[in-house]
Amino acid sequence: MKDVSLKPDSLRQAEAVAVLHAPAECIERLRSGDTEKGDPLKTARVAGILAAKRCDELIPLCHPLPIYRADVDFELAADRVAVRATVLTIGATGVEMEALLAANLAALTIYDMLKPYCEPEQLWISDSRLLEKQGGKSHFVRHLS
Amino acid sequence: MKDVSLKPDSLRQAEAVAVLHAPAECIERLRSGDTEKGDPLKTARVAGILAAKRCDELIPLCHPLPIYRADVDFELAADRVAVRATVLTIGATGVEMEALLAANLAALTIYDMLKPYCEPEQLWISDSRLLEKQGGKSHFVRHLS
Amino acid sequence: MKDVSLKPDSLRQAEAVAVLHAPAECIERLRSGDTEKGDPLKTARVAGILAAKRCDELIPLCHPLPIYRADVDFELAADRVAVRATVLTIGATGVEMEALLAANLAALTIYDMLKPYCEPEQLWISDSRLLEKQGGKSHFVRHLS
Amino acid sequence: MKDVSLKPDSLRQAEAVAVLHAPAECIERLRSGDTEKGDPLKTARVAGILAAKRCDELIPLCHPLPIYRADVDFELAADRVAVRATVLTIGATGVEMEALLAANLAALTIYDMLKPYCEPEQLWISDSRLLEKQGGKSHFVRHLS
Amino acid sequence: MKDVSLKPDSLRQAEAVAVLHAPAECIERLRSGDTEKGDPLKTARVAGILAAKRCDELIPLCHPLPIYRADVDFELAADRVAVRATVLTIGATGVEMEALLAANLAALTIYDMLKPYCEPEQLWISDSRLLEKQGGKSHFVRHLS
Amino acid sequence: MKDVSLKPDSLRQAEAVAVLHAPAECIERLRSGDTEKGDPLKTARVAGILAAKRCDELIPLCHPLPIYRADVDFELAADRVAVRATVLTIGATGVEMEALLAANLAALTIYDMLKPYCEPEQLWISDSRLLEKQGGKSHFVRHLS
Repeated sequence: MKDVSLKPDSLRQAEAVAVLHAPAECIERLRSGDTEKGDPLKTARVAGILAAKRCDELIPLCHPLPIYRADVDFELAADRVAVRATVLTIGATGVEMEALLAANLAALTIYDMLKPYCEPEQLWISDSRLLEKQGGKSHFVRHLS
Repeated sequence: MKDVSLKPDSLRQAEAVAVLHAPAECIERLRSGDTEKGDPLKTARVAGILAAKRCDELIPLCHPLPIYRADVDFELAADRVAVRATVLTIGATGVEMEALLAANLAALTIYDMLKPYCEPEQLWISDSRLLEKQGGKSHFVRHLS
Repeated sequence: MKDVSLKPDSLRQAEAVAVLHAPAECIERLRSGDTEKGDPLKTARVAGILAAKRCDELIPLCHPLPIYRADVDFELAADRVAVRATVLTIGATGVEMEALLAANLAALTIYDMLKPYCEPEQLWISDSRLLEKQGGKSHFVRHLS
Repeated sequence: MKDVSLKPDSLRQAEAVAVLHAPAECIERLRSGDTEKGDPLKTARVAGILAAKRCDELIPLCHPLPIYRADVDFELAADRVAVRATVLTIGATGVEMEALLAANLAALTIYDMLKPYCEPEQLWISDSRLLEKQGGKSHFVRHLS
Repeated sequence: MKDVSLKPDSLRQAEAVAVLHAPAECIERLRSGDTEKGDPLKTARVAGILAAKRCDELIPLCHPLPIYRADVDFELAADRVAVRATVLTIGATGVEMEALLAANLAALTIYDMLKPYCEPEQLWISDSRLLEKQGGKSHFVRHLS
Repeated sequence: MKDVSLKPDSLRQAEAVAVLHAPAECIERLRSGDTEKGDPLKTARVAGILAAKRCDELIPLCHPLPIYRADVDFELAADRVAVRATVLTIGATGVEMEALLAANLAALTIYDMLKPYCEPEQLWISDSRLLEKQGGKSHFVRHLS
């Protein structure tokens, strides 16, 4: 794990997305919050936030960072849900991995709660990527096509 | 978390994939094992295996399962790496989520180790899905197109 | 940690409660799910279930047990919420501590989400106890007065 | 998880209590440190301190905070033990939840170690609450009746 | 992580030791239980037991095993303490690593609690090894010289 | 856990070693990276780094510290490997325990991966100690004999 003791603390933010595909009737269950395991979006939000806080335990070379904000929201389309995670720190390194991890864990939590309602080939994550990062030496904004 | 006490234990296996896209020079670094943070594939394998064993901590409605085998391997192409995770248990529920989590965590670990060498828009996970599951009431094999 | 290798596995269940007192307007927020931190009851359910699965990490002399079911539900009264947790295993020791821990962690999660809306002296847990346990050598049912 | 990046760091302390009821002969065991599982108060102190440090893992919307001090002490009465936890940080948010969690986990640890010596209905937590908090925008001291 | 699904479950036990050297006055503090951080041996026992239960999280290629018993005891000599850990499971693989980890973590916990009372060169672990293992295909007893 | 809120933050570093003895043919496997469980040194490095970041979870009276750097390297001799861990923080307390824990966990990980290739009496940790610490009130360097 690299030495970051000479890097100054700064306000750093990152936003990432993971897109989960699911049949329309499953997307409807996300809207209603009704599955046998509970409310998928509210559960996934908790899973994503918890994951952001434990990123350095799970991704071995990540530095521990004090998370000042972490949140997950969801954009529902006809046959997919875009899971967006935003994480903010004041620290020496960025929070890209925290945001990516939160988005992925939230998407997998939804997958877990929807899988009793469809076939395995109907569920997949098609796209997981960084959308934006601020702070540190370089800013970055992805222009979604 | 659903009651699975009436489900019989059986041998269950699942295989999942996550495909990470990266520039050719980054893929070359995966081959040589050379990044400032260490050897990406060997580190990612460990991260994936560890994640499989902690799936029930991270995905809230997953049951804890005794993992009898977990492994991660990598197929390198010109501009991407396919991360495949296989997990095996003898238990009352399947290990799909364990396999998906292992593949995703391994892919994110590679992402973390490659990001000093490229731009954020050059790295993304394009596809994460279950490839196969065996045991329990239903078998499933995805025919990759 | 005591040797339980000679105890036979059996189906064991436990139910516990923790009663959290809060002002009426806070109880109303539990009903509507509306706080600045999110939906308290749905978040608390997740926190309780996750805690049940990690009981042996948190309570040092507890044995690890495969949790076959864990759930948390809530009974709202005018100025309090009764948090009930039920946990089920097939194992050599009982799940009383898992149920008590789940009820307490869920109650504390609600506390955390309500505290921006009232004074510290308006929130407290008045009663946390085992309600029922089944399996093992002794059955037990508490008759609530 | 709310954004606290604009809140200044300050010294913050909180004290919480959880009162565990137990038969007189069990309280005597707390005094002598003699149970088949080991010394209950010394074990409970460790469990409480460890829990304070992991509060943000267990209570989903809590921010991670650097814990500068955490301790647990015990006041024994004829038929109960008051478990008091004190936690101190220098951070952007308070440590009420850390103190409450430490007191509760310590009380549950004692419960676990005493339960071989009495009936389930003889053990319960009657009162768990914040006693004092200092730092941040509001001070608070509870006057115990 | 190797496939152990074809190995039969059997009763397996392992015992390991770690020997920590410390000045006589520090050993006296172990006897009296008196340090500014608390009682070292009782704290170390808890740390060792907790570590045994989390071995598969910490040692990447270890299989998770249901721990049926774990304990740590201490043999004090004039200038050293032998920390012995015993772990027992019914499972497909042995618990050597669990016992070694418990002994080491308990020894390091004592180290941490004694270091305010001596110089760094006065504390070291001179010997950590497996003493005995039973069950599985091979029995083993080390004859201590 | 002691109050360290009045101690100023400073740059602190610690280096520790754990020496694992193994037969020559096992040391050769460390060189080639070839065992049935994977590459031992690369796996051990990850295990050590991860342990350094979780030190306050495992050693009960350790304060949580933001780890700015953690690394593990290996010096191979004919019949042993010296595992050295270096940890760096900017904090109120030192990182001796983090470095010792990282060195020990890395050594135990190697042990776990070599044990299929030799007898239990051929593997042991002969020496684990602090080599150097910098920062805080006292500097320390051990002169290895």
